[in-house]
Parts: sequence; C-alpha cells; structure tokens
Amino acid sequence: MAASISRVVVYGGKGALGREIVGYFKQKSWWVGSIDIFGNDEANANFLINPELSWTEQNESINNQVSSAIGDEKLDAIVCVAGGWAGGNAASKDLVKNSDLMWKQSVWTSIIAAGLASNYLKVGGMLTLTGAKAALESTPGMIGYGMAKAAVHQLVASLSDGKGGLPENSCVAAILPITLDTPMNRKFMPKADTSTWTPLDFVAKLLYSWSTNVDRPISGSLMQLETKDGKTELKTAKM
Amino acid sequence: MAASISRVVVYGGKGALGREIVGYFKQKSWWVGSIDIFGNDEANANFLINPELSWTEQNESINNQVSSAIGDEKLDAIVCVAGGWAGGNAASKDLVKNSDLMWKQSVWTSIIAAGLASNYLKVGGMLTLTGAKAALESTPGMIGYGMAKAAVHQLVASLSDGKGGLPENSCVAAILPITLDTPMNRKFMPKADTSTWTPLDFVAKLLYSWSTNVDRPISGSLMQLETKDGKTELKTAKM
Repeated sequence: MAASISRVVVYGGKGALGREIVGYFKQKSWWVGSIDIFGNDEANANFLINPELSWTEQNESINNQVSSAIGDEKLDAIVCVAGGWAGGNAASKDLVKNSDLMWKQSVWTSIIAAGLASNYLKVGGMLTLTGAKAALESTPGMIGYGMAKAAVHQLVASLSDGKGGLPENSCVAAILPITLDTPMNRKFMPKADTSTWTPLDFVAKLLYSWSTNVDRPISGSLMQLETKDGKTELKTAKM
Repeated sequence: MAASISRVVVYGGKGALGREIVGYFKQKSWWVGSIDIFGNDEANANFLINPELSWTEQNESINNQVSSAIGDEKLDAIVCVAGGWAGGNAASKDLVKNSDLMWKQSVWTSIIAAGLASNYLKVGGMLTLTGAKAALESTPGMIGYGMAKAAVHQLVASLSDGKGGLPENSCVAAILPITLDTPMNRKFMPKADTSTWTPLDFVAKLLYSWSTNVDRPISGSLMQLETKDGKTELKTAKM
C-alpha cells in the first residue's frame, strides 16, 4: 500500500527563500508545487504566473493550474513567501509606482494564497503568509512596503477568524522577518552585520514544522523572527 | 487689500460626505477644489479622474490639474474622504475583485493625497485621511475592506513621522467612522438604528476645525467617531 503523500504549494517558489523551502519539503518527501514567474526544477509541479495579467486573471490562472495538478486531492500546507522591497517617503517621485509594486508583490500574492487555502487546503491544514516586523510601526522611509505588509498582518487576523472562509481547524500565521540572509541582501548590504540576519534554512525548517503540526502557533499569530549571534527566536506580535 | 484666501482640496468631493465637506468649507469662504470622477458644481475647481487610468496615470493627472489651478499657491488642507465598501471572506468568489476595488477606492486615493500633501500643502497644513474602526481588528466578513483600511492606518503613522515627506509642522490624521449617516446607508440598511450613525455635518465641522488648527489632534492620530443617541465622541485608537 502506498503511503499517503503530503502536499505543499509554495508561492514564490523560485525566490531565494522559496527555493530553500521547496528543497526542504522535497528532502522530506513531500509533493511540492511552486507558484512563480519562473519554474523551479526541484518542484513536482510549476504553476507559472504571467506578471502582465491583472490580479483577477492571475488568480484564475493559478487556481486552474493548481486544480488540474492535484485533481480531487487537497493540500496539507500553503506557504506564501512571495514579496519584495522598495523604499521612498511621500516626497519620493516613485511613491505611487513603488506602492503599486509592493501591493502586487505582497498583497496580490497573499490574497491569492488565501483563496487557494479556501479552495484546496485540507481540514486542519496550514497557511503561512509573510509580513514584516517593521510594518508593526510606522515606516516613513518605505511607505508602500509598510502599507502592504500592514495589510497582510490584518489579513492574517481576518483569516484566523472562524468566519474568514478557511477550512475547519486550519491554521494561518505570518512570519515577520527583520532581514533575511539572502544573496541579494548580502550583495546590497555588504558591510552589514549578518549575525542578526535570519538564515533561510531556519525559516524552511520552521515552516515545515508548522506544516506537520509540530509547534504550530495559535491561528492568527504574527511571529517575529529575531536573530542575534546567528540564533533566531520567535516572538509573537500584536497587530 | 484682499484678505488671504484659505484653500482646501477634497478628494471624493462628489460623494455624500465629500459634498457635505465641500459645502461647509464654501460656507466659510474657503477656496475649494474637488477631486472626483464627476464634478461638484459648488467647488471652485474640479479635478476630474478617469477611473480607467492606472494608479500612476491618475496620480500624474491629478497633480497636473491641481498645479495648474493653484499656481504658486499652497493648500491649507487636504481631505481625502474617497472610499467605498464591499464584503466577502476568503471563500467568496469575488475575493480578488472586491479586494482590488477596495484598494483602488481607499489606498490609491490616500497615497495620491499623501503625494499632493508633500507637493502642495503649506507648512503647518492639515491632511486628513479616512480609515475605519472595524479595521483595527479582524474583518473576516469583509477581507478586502479591512486590509485596505489597515493599510491607510499604517500610512498615517508613516506620514506623521518627521521623515515621512510631508511639509514641516503639518499634521496628518485619519477619521475612523463606524457607520456614516449617508443616503446609501439608509437605503441599504432601512431597519438600522440610525441614532448610532455619525451625521455628515458633524464630520464636516470636525475636519473644518482641524483645518483651521482648532482642536487639531496630534499628528498620526487615528480618531474613532463613536455616535450614541445622535451624539458623536472622538476616541483615539492605536494602530
């Protein structure tokens, strides 16, 4: 008899963090689907996005692709680590352009992930989104980024409510990183103290643990990732 | 010698609340500009929006129109009361469509207003945005609305910071209504207890008072409007 396979979909599965997560779940013999603009060869299935499409069109395309791939099966976990960063205050000439980009990268993806969870997550499944510790307070130097992440935090609260539309007994939480130890961050902040940056493998292990219902936080949690001397601790935040 | 004229721009100046505000400032002999899809005949100038345009295009068009109208003058106040409402949880087939609409109605307008404030508000001027008391907590039955308003609340915090890009000594605050006593709300909730709804003229007087630096709240304030027995009290909220 074949053992039942566990399934995860990783939104942003070709980004630095997404690749780490895809690799980790694969190592644990999970079936892994990756949603991204580009395919991830490690994934069992790739659901490709055309970034030229509108929000509703991307949503429809992704739902159709996921539905075709899993048939009548359901997902054990959905992990959304899509995102990006852009700075600028209200005086920036790129205020609107950057706010638009932040919204697309963090909120389009999170809302589409929430819809996927409503449609395809198992009873008792896990949905993880990505917020940002900075957005718990004001972010004058990165206005669009802060707004988008604050919106994701509030989304987590709404989804964790019994009337939010997720399957019964499912759990939704967000990770709130400060700085992730990615190649891009190392490239653009070459002189930074990387001992306070959160290693990607820590995040991959954490999300795997939550997905297998080990040390899973209370639904609705915003979990800050605080790294000191290379060691990361979790701290629950209030919206 | 001509007395110096005070100037306000009302974003959403043709909506129910916007019309009340335009009328009130006109009564007080202010020069009033209205930004909306349709013109408001009471306004001194109308800055019309083509809703088919993108966020960046609308921003450019509005900035050009305001700049042409006021020349080298500056504004004493900018009031953004544009907005709307749509419901639905994560299981709604309109999840993305409604989230998109809420973002456009509440966040496009608030960010464009923030940019206008950076460009055209006087030193010591007043910028008022519109949040929602509901979005201080989870809003499972209206996911897109809650996210958009939570983003506006965080924007107010960022703008109130000295590095947010607004003119010196200016003040930014948001009103957080529960239910406004508008014709639309009366039409769609005919059996509701309207004694807990906030009258539009209360809001108009309040925003006029803040604009003239009377009882102006601390910059960054989220001011809840709580109405009981037809009387409205202000309560400061924490993001």
